[in-house]
Amino acid sequence: MVKPSHEGLNVLGAFNPGATKYKNEILLLLRIAETCNKKQNFVSVPYFNFIENNAKFEVLDIPENSKELELKDTRGILYKGVDYLTSVSHLRLARSNDGFNFAVDEKPFILPHNQTASFGVEDARISKIGDIYYINYTIVSGDGYSTFLSSTKDFKNVKQHGIIFPPLNKDVVIFEEKVNNKYIALHRPSNHGFGLPSIWYAESEDLIHWGNHICLLRPNKSVWESQKIGAGAPPIKTNKGWLEIYHSKGKNNIYSLNLMLLDLKNPSKIIALSKTPVMIPETEYEKNGFFGNVIFTNGHIVKENGDINLYYGSSDENVCVAEISIDKLLKSLK
Amino acid sequence: MVKPSHEGLNVLGAFNPGATKYKNEILLLLRIAETCNKKQNFVSVPYFNFIENNAKFEVLDIPENSKELELKDTRGILYKGVDYLTSVSHLRLARSNDGFNFAVDEKPFILPHNQTASFGVEDARISKIGDIYYINYTIVSGDGYSTFLSSTKDFKNVKQHGIIFPPLNKDVVIFEEKVNNKYIALHRPSNHGFGLPSIWYAESEDLIHWGNHICLLRPNKSVWESQKIGAGAPPIKTNKGWLEIYHSKGKNNIYSLNLMLLDLKNPSKIIALSKTPVMIPETEYEKNGFFGNVIFTNGHIVKENGDINLYYGSSDENVCVAEISIDKLLKSLK
Repeated sequence: MVKPSHEGLNVLGAFNPGATKYKNEILLLLRIAETCNKKQNFVSVPYFNFIENNAKFEVLDIPENSKELELKDTRGILYKGVDYLTSVSHLRLARSNDGFNFAVDEKPFILPHNQTASFGVEDARISKIGDIYYINYTIVSGDGYSTFLSSTKDFKNVKQHGIIFPPLNKDVVIFEEKVNNKYIALHRPSNHGFGLPSIWYAESEDLIHWGNHICLLRPNKSVWESQKIGAGAPPIKTNKGWLEIYHSKGKNNIYSLNLMLLDLKNPSKIIALSKTPVMIPETEYEKNGFFGNVIFTNGHIVKENGDINLYYGSSDENVCVAEISIDKLLKSLK
Repeated sequence: MVKPSHEGLNVLGAFNPGATKYKNEILLLLRIAETCNKKQNFVSVPYFNFIENNAKFEVLDIPENSKELELKDTRGILYKGVDYLTSVSHLRLARSNDGFNFAVDEKPFILPHNQTASFGVEDARISKIGDIYYINYTIVSGDGYSTFLSSTKDFKNVKQHGIIFPPLNKDVVIFEEKVNNKYIALHRPSNHGFGLPSIWYAESEDLIHWGNHICLLRPNKSVWESQKIGAGAPPIKTNKGWLEIYHSKGKNNIYSLNLMLLDLKNPSKIIALSKTPVMIPETEYEKNGFFGNVIFTNGHIVKENGDINLYYGSSDENVCVAEISIDKLLKSLK
């Protein structure tokens, strides 16, 4: 369904969509991962080069037998001591009237904008605040991954606000309204060499500058959560609290989805947590693919009947949807 | 010269001081690293435990032959998959009338304040803005290391402002005046698994919330700088630009000091860099000690004659001072 953004690129997957309602449509902002044609005896790495902020798509061809080449997993390589990704991602809109049948735009919506995103832009979250749609996403380059903020009012013109969480930081979600007159975000700094990647809380007065960082939730020791956790989409406001669906990776190497309920008036306080995942990879397309055993959500739509359409990526390859009752999620926390 | 802060602790070193002038005195805010008595056949790890924010000093004794114990370098160990430091640091004032002869306070000035600093507080930088002395320092815990901000007006009462740069981030310096109506900081996020630790630029409107993060300077490939770099003390304002003395670690495993000159009106722009270090470990006490071949500065005093007293730690053990002409430093950049 998805056309390549550039000659010489192949679409590897469309996954991990941000989601929102805009006018009469449901919009998904897909992560489109693309790779280049494999040349025999070479590992080919696509990336963007920027000369005076003009993007130029380039390919680095590395001899397969190079002693300076180290393959990590299917997603990354190390060459001459420098990290590269095996694919480069951009963000593209898909549009639907019913939330289930989508038409994917022919052109990208957000492309890497400068050298800080030379390896791609990934995993958008959309927060509607007032009449502005704030879009945060992971930017990746040789400096690491960090979180960039843009905004739009019309899904045509995009305003860039800069890096809001410096490296290494991803899985950022911004609450869709202020609490105690502060904007609130959850974020996920890397603490490599110390503890396990955990979910942090932060506050802002303008969405651009962030502070009052607090470590909110560390992975528990269960088989589902023992490697890392990270926030999903902006939380759902319920009368019981802010309901956040977050992902975890356990020692079984499976990504699953879990629940966290935060105090309505003080979202730095956790009220309840799910004891076991609410969703795990079960189907063929969730268990197998480019990077199997991954379900990852960063977008949902709340419907009038109190259900949500939970959009999620499976195996870093496809977009899936699950219909879930918010009430049932909340009751499961009792 | 330094008394232990707590029974059962031994002072391992006093080093890496922040520096400022207060009334008629020159103050150093020393990092005091302490360790506990070694028990035969055990590795003993000191740390603070907090029960309802009351600090309790504790020691973890690990059998030397434990299969779950992994020694890293002299500074850290891994036990049952959890990181610990072999020493715990606090911050203590030393006072002088001449900048060379100091009396060290008997009691700590800043101790770990809660669980986020359970492994200690380290490497203070002092920025005088108006009549307030802002003190930022590294806090270390099982969640990693991050940068905390406190302030004082009188070096008696301390106000805490929270984590300003979440993990993994250290080597933060805050400029001593606003530029373009924004507070400016340099910081050093970890980008483990990607590039080399680099110096970043950030802006704030209130010193608490930080944004507009820009990667300012990456390590060059020289033998002096090829591993990592990080800012030193708050920069010196000169008529040529903001002069920052920063440290580097190269593939020779030596820490040295280097110069960076930033545009007066736009400190996110580098005007000049030193081509080789301005200072390297040369003396016995710089080359050998708890962690040898380290010179590290995070404090200086500008004197009326245009010289600075550059205070620096040597080998993670001692405090040293060097007198340097700012003019000569600037001329060396031509």
